[in-house]
Amino acid sequence: MTIYSGKNVLITGGLGFIGSNLARILVAQGAKVTLVDSLIPQYGGNYFNIVGIRDDVAVNICDVRDPFSMRYLLQGMDYLFNLAGQTSHMDSMSNPQADLDINAAAQLSILEACRQVNPEIKIVFASTRQLYGKPDYLPVDEKHPVRPVDVNGINKLAGEWYHLLYNNVYNIRACALRLTNTYGPGMRVKDARQTFLGIWVRLLIEGKPIKIFGDGMQLRDFNYVDDCVDALLLAGASDEVNGKVYNLGSSEVVGLKSLAEMMIALVPGGVFELTPFPSDRKAIDIGDYYSDFSLISRELGWSPKVPLLMGLKKTLTYYKKHQESYWET
Amino acid sequence: MTIYSGKNVLITGGLGFIGSNLARILVAQGAKVTLVDSLIPQYGGNYFNIVGIRDDVAVNICDVRDPFSMRYLLQGMDYLFNLAGQTSHMDSMSNPQADLDINAAAQLSILEACRQVNPEIKIVFASTRQLYGKPDYLPVDEKHPVRPVDVNGINKLAGEWYHLLYNNVYNIRACALRLTNTYGPGMRVKDARQTFLGIWVRLLIEGKPIKIFGDGMQLRDFNYVDDCVDALLLAGASDEVNGKVYNLGSSEVVGLKSLAEMMIALVPGGVFELTPFPSDRKAIDIGDYYSDFSLISRELGWSPKVPLLMGLKKTLTYYKKHQESYWET
Repeated sequence: MTIYSGKNVLITGGLGFIGSNLARILVAQGAKVTLVDSLIPQYGGNYFNIVGIRDDVAVNICDVRDPFSMRYLLQGMDYLFNLAGQTSHMDSMSNPQADLDINAAAQLSILEACRQVNPEIKIVFASTRQLYGKPDYLPVDEKHPVRPVDVNGINKLAGEWYHLLYNNVYNIRACALRLTNTYGPGMRVKDARQTFLGIWVRLLIEGKPIKIFGDGMQLRDFNYVDDCVDALLLAGASDEVNGKVYNLGSSEVVGLKSLAEMMIALVPGGVFELTPFPSDRKAIDIGDYYSDFSLISRELGWSPKVPLLMGLKKTLTYYKKHQESYWET
Repeated sequence: MTIYSGKNVLITGGLGFIGSNLARILVAQGAKVTLVDSLIPQYGGNYFNIVGIRDDVAVNICDVRDPFSMRYLLQGMDYLFNLAGQTSHMDSMSNPQADLDINAAAQLSILEACRQVNPEIKIVFASTRQLYGKPDYLPVDEKHPVRPVDVNGINKLAGEWYHLLYNNVYNIRACALRLTNTYGPGMRVKDARQTFLGIWVRLLIEGKPIKIFGDGMQLRDFNYVDDCVDALLLAGASDEVNGKVYNLGSSEVVGLKSLAEMMIALVPGGVFELTPFPSDRKAIDIGDYYSDFSLISRELGWSPKVPLLMGLKKTLTYYKKHQESYWET
């Protein structure tokens, strides 16, 4: 028995990477889970992600940009884990309007719908460290100025702030978690649209070299998806978090070259190569980043449990076994 | 002869308060001025604002949300003064989608159009002190965290940041001025949608009491429109400002009650009354605010020239004379 037992839970982006992993845990805890996903081929949704729980959840194909359907689906829900988003920084630059529609406009219309038809709902919004832009200092805490360096960052910030605003003005209970690089089974590996780790995993398994932009010294932190799901569940279960933002993060901070070395050691024949930064990527690169996640540790008792090496092993094992379900679907 | 002489200048919101005052100066300086305005009755556009320069400017009725027309109109322009916006905080809460479409989405599509058809253009964007939310300290400088308290603030922030982003990534030269309360001839006085000073002016001239929410101790700073126009022209003429934001402001900081006392002294029979804050306004009120405008003073030599009392006199004189053109148009 947990707080979610018997509760109606809506997950946007529910067939995606984090949404499907979250759904699995919620089903195990006895929640009545509805997954909303538009299964746009360039995004993260994949039916294979819910193998094993397919009959235990309701799947509703719907885009968050469809205000009519969202308004209906939100009725009667106790919890909304609002994870749907356009995640590619590069795509946000080549198609800024779509990024705005999904990451900002749709969020506003979801919140308006909640205000009108379900003001009692409790919302956890998946935000991103991208809002901080190039850090002024490390590790980056929640007091760090927000200064997005790409269209995606600006729109995600607007989306996050609508949530906080609706909490503050209308008492629609909402908080935001600013996720760092999340990885694990279920992530998109066809390309780098969701995380560069996805395409690295695929290239390694295909026996091709990993490409690292620049000198490979850029620092990053990573969360295994189970740890990310833990944080979402903790935030959903607490009313202390309403109106607040929390960084996720990890105390295992690694350079990209070191990360590549860890990964190639796990795959016989794996190699990486350093390659100059393409100018369009360099223009929106954020340099070194890692989080101070002491706020969520202090207030919700969260800390990541899965060591990076173990998480990478699990991830590579998963994709070696299930590659046919992720490469071309 | 100024830098604007003979240049093609587009002003969005050109029939509005600040746009029309800017147009008047640009015409005097020999610029070829095109005004874009959609004349939405709830917004600031008013043909009377361009009496005297009607034959010296091109007027094109068009909404900034129309990406097709904007794309055409931007071609061949040397300067864009991008002033069109939804300015009402209350309207942004009751119709958040319209606010998003105008203040964020339309700005992004204007910048995309510039990138595609006129990357040489120089843009000055009219932003707002509303982005800062409730100040942490006073006076508020540009380093103050941004933390909007209403939908309008969030969307204006996104609109501002798109400008800086397109400057930084695509070299579309753009800067933003964060305006404080601007007042003067041409402002909307039908209601408080543009500035509360507008409705105060109207009530005084009609012999009705001014209403002040709360105790009247809230501090504000004000710029007479000529000073605001000066700042826009200085920013347009400089390439040092590209990619930056600047506060406007005034060193004459007054409480709202003191302001009301100044104004009623200028109008025989004028009175004001204190009234409790309506709860919907209180929820998005920012408390005391005034700017540190030393950055633009230092870098562009700007400082406001028109004392508040003189500006208020000019404004009241203007509306006494021209009320029939502003009350019901």
